[in-house]
Amino acid sequence: MGSLPNQKLDTGFSGVIKPLDPEEFRRQGHLVIDFLADYYKNVDKYPVRSQVEPGYLKKRLPESAPYDAEPIEKILGDVQNDIVPGITHWQSPNYFAYFPSSGSIAGFLGEMLSTGFNVVGFNWMSSPAATELESIVMDWLGKMLKLPSEFLFSGGGGGVLQGTTCEAILCTMVAARDRVLKKIGRENINKLVVYGSDQTHSAIQKAAQIAGVNPSNFRAVATSKSTAFGLTAEAFRAQVESDVESGLVPLFLCATIGTTSSTAVDPLGPLCAVAKEFNIWVHVDAAYAGSACICPEYRHFLDGVENADSFSFNAHKWFLTTLDCCCLWVKDPSALVKALSTYPEYLRNKASDEKSVIDYKDWQITLSRRFRSLKLWLVIRSYGVANLRKFLRSHIKMAKNFEGLIGMDKRFEVVVPRNFATVCFRISPIEISGNHQIVSKEEAANNINAKLLETINESGKIYMTHAVIGGVYVMRFAVGATLTENRHVILAWKIVQEHANALLNSS
Amino acid sequence: MGSLPNQKLDTGFSGVIKPLDPEEFRRQGHLVIDFLADYYKNVDKYPVRSQVEPGYLKKRLPESAPYDAEPIEKILGDVQNDIVPGITHWQSPNYFAYFPSSGSIAGFLGEMLSTGFNVVGFNWMSSPAATELESIVMDWLGKMLKLPSEFLFSGGGGGVLQGTTCEAILCTMVAARDRVLKKIGRENINKLVVYGSDQTHSAIQKAAQIAGVNPSNFRAVATSKSTAFGLTAEAFRAQVESDVESGLVPLFLCATIGTTSSTAVDPLGPLCAVAKEFNIWVHVDAAYAGSACICPEYRHFLDGVENADSFSFNAHKWFLTTLDCCCLWVKDPSALVKALSTYPEYLRNKASDEKSVIDYKDWQITLSRRFRSLKLWLVIRSYGVANLRKFLRSHIKMAKNFEGLIGMDKRFEVVVPRNFATVCFRISPIEISGNHQIVSKEEAANNINAKLLETINESGKIYMTHAVIGGVYVMRFAVGATLTENRHVILAWKIVQEHANALLNSS
Repeated sequence: MGSLPNQKLDTGFSGVIKPLDPEEFRRQGHLVIDFLADYYKNVDKYPVRSQVEPGYLKKRLPESAPYDAEPIEKILGDVQNDIVPGITHWQSPNYFAYFPSSGSIAGFLGEMLSTGFNVVGFNWMSSPAATELESIVMDWLGKMLKLPSEFLFSGGGGGVLQGTTCEAILCTMVAARDRVLKKIGRENINKLVVYGSDQTHSAIQKAAQIAGVNPSNFRAVATSKSTAFGLTAEAFRAQVESDVESGLVPLFLCATIGTTSSTAVDPLGPLCAVAKEFNIWVHVDAAYAGSACICPEYRHFLDGVENADSFSFNAHKWFLTTLDCCCLWVKDPSALVKALSTYPEYLRNKASDEKSVIDYKDWQITLSRRFRSLKLWLVIRSYGVANLRKFLRSHIKMAKNFEGLIGMDKRFEVVVPRNFATVCFRISPIEISGNHQIVSKEEAANNINAKLLETINESGKIYMTHAVIGGVYVMRFAVGATLTENRHVILAWKIVQEHANALLNSS
Repeated sequence: MGSLPNQKLDTGFSGVIKPLDPEEFRRQGHLVIDFLADYYKNVDKYPVRSQVEPGYLKKRLPESAPYDAEPIEKILGDVQNDIVPGITHWQSPNYFAYFPSSGSIAGFLGEMLSTGFNVVGFNWMSSPAATELESIVMDWLGKMLKLPSEFLFSGGGGGVLQGTTCEAILCTMVAARDRVLKKIGRENINKLVVYGSDQTHSAIQKAAQIAGVNPSNFRAVATSKSTAFGLTAEAFRAQVESDVESGLVPLFLCATIGTTSSTAVDPLGPLCAVAKEFNIWVHVDAAYAGSACICPEYRHFLDGVENADSFSFNAHKWFLTTLDCCCLWVKDPSALVKALSTYPEYLRNKASDEKSVIDYKDWQITLSRRFRSLKLWLVIRSYGVANLRKFLRSHIKMAKNFEGLIGMDKRFEVVVPRNFATVCFRISPIEISGNHQIVSKEEAANNINAKLLETINESGKIYMTHAVIGGVYVMRFAVGATLTENRHVILAWKIVQEHANALLNSS
């Protein structure tokens, strides 16, 4: 800090801080690397789900910003004392909630490089490497997933990195919307209908809402246990035909490979066939399960994707790439560009004028964008296809082991078939005793499983979340945190059993 | 890497990689810190605007992902050899293009911590610290900007960190849209009108487009040199009245403090008065200039904000916080929540059910969100209000110096008054000789200034971009890169003069 040494004239700049001094950057950077390395070393010792009460931090921090500078050492002390207790430790080996947020060294380093260069890659010109690396890596990844060539740049389509699936769905829905409105006229916007199943992620409903689709025209088509909560082509067709009969215009279907509640899989082939008949844009959301499809033995879950219009998965979920990094491919990039392009004078440049480059600003909601492909590139290169597959398989194997452990305890049951590394289970209703005059056995089971989950999570030893599938309350055990090893899964099962023992004995 | 040492049973997991091994994290993390420290040390030696040709990277990288792992040392070598030449160096002290992307050590460290914890903070429960720190820091920052208390949590409003201004505008526009449609009925969506000026950022047009506003109902109200390209209340009123007369429904105005082309300032007081009359939501976009308003002597630019509905500025532009970090405040958070909330079963939790917490997922487009407040908190604490002001003033002073240098060379002129740290200038038409039978003197000036800018940028010594304001092509000299000192500004002016000499002598 201090005054600028190379200032020859006194121009009144002395005393100005130097917030990017390379040697100070080096010193403080090393401090934070050590801080985080120690965090990972000890992360299994923290309660997984934060145990603070709402408003805890307000009591600890001042009401206003500091007027004077504070040293990094003091700030890091406060991170440890004030922030860490308020963190739910997604990187803990004992984290089995929601879906994983699987960080890695390579992903972290890629984010560091991206943050360090700090380029704003809205168009090619603003940093050619940002655009070009993204296109190359998206083709790499598309090939790893054996996506049909129409989704790759090399085949006339293309891939782009969005922040999250919500953005991917919104962008493709707006592209689909404008394609249809161009034909039928904007005055018909209230006739557009968007389809998912009752298992589809809330992202679709939110995207429809933002895109101006009439909320009463969002269809969550019912699924059932008989088809493992996959959306059947028959149910989809029935809904579409009924809508067409009512004078509505089917627009967009979001089919899911690995739903949030139970990792159910919608059958792409039959659904796309119906969609084609009615000129409906099909987006395939494989946010969670897409990663596993780089393994040949799981690729069949994507069968039928060749007839979809767009496909996305989140590398920040289960692909060792830190948040945020949603990989989206489309067959017809021009549909995105037509819906999302702006080209103000102040962004004009020769390369864009000549249309010799991709300007990713026209493939997404925002103008500014980070250099996200660096982290994906580092992950793929640092581990290689072979290790990535091995790693994903190890999680699936752990989940299978957990399933096996459940199977050995007759009080419990697996509620839906396990497709990937997430197990949905519960204490079976058969085990529930007590006063069932007031509530049904199923309702009693739901209550006791909810209670069990809360006591487990309160213990801080492991963290799982829940879902309700076909009326059944289930605990979701999602393996995928990077530090999780089989011993953590075995321990997790013991913790579940211990809490169940206490609960069942007391009730 | 290698096999897992603590595995007691052979469960088939040997050979699985350990992508978050703490000691390997430490080793590789230190490597990348040193890589970036050296980058900052040498960043002034690189051509500022990348000199690669479209497609350069494809020639250097393999067509498919590697099957086997590659060492970090090799990857960093490739970053240096293949990526760095394709980067436009936004962190170079000789970067004066667009608006700055002012990185800092504190911003970088905050991003590291956020990436390291890698929490997905969609709701309070998923990591209480992420939500609570954000609320606290947004109140801090609101106070630094002397925003009226209605924008702060402490006054019934509240702040949220979005990625970019595009998202902030889209979210507020959707909130405004739904508020109005609730009254007038969804069938009237095609009557909604969105307003900006011909200087407003393209983000507004794009947001309107995404939100389903009829593209023919986007108004870019004309501005002129006589009001320094600010949108006048008179022109705005005339357009609104004409639209109302045509049976349309005015919805949303985006007023700008510091436009992209020329840092023009729209007069908030008079504009908000008109908007109030017609029940129009006013969003204030201070993406660039908002930072400067933490200095008491620039705060007057925000006068009138007390009558707006929402306000945003980008901490990632000129506030030492790395991309992306857009700070948005709204007076009525419930309008955002009504438009953007979803609450699927799998996200249900006690704190949300009790409405005792903020769930930021309902304040933004996406569900998942990074822990962005960490970097903002680190920036504010590491530098303190006093140094932040000093830093911003130093840039404004440098821009003023540049303006002074222009004033000493009669061939040049400053085209619009400088408000902040961006100077719009050109070779004056008076200086242009040659064949003016074909083109007007103004057109000739536009051509020669465009040519001058291109030759300067091609040299790689400095990077500026352009705008066209009121038909006049200007070079924009935007001071704000963190490493820029006054000596770089003096050198930049010499480079401009040298290229102008060559160009004017040859023509």
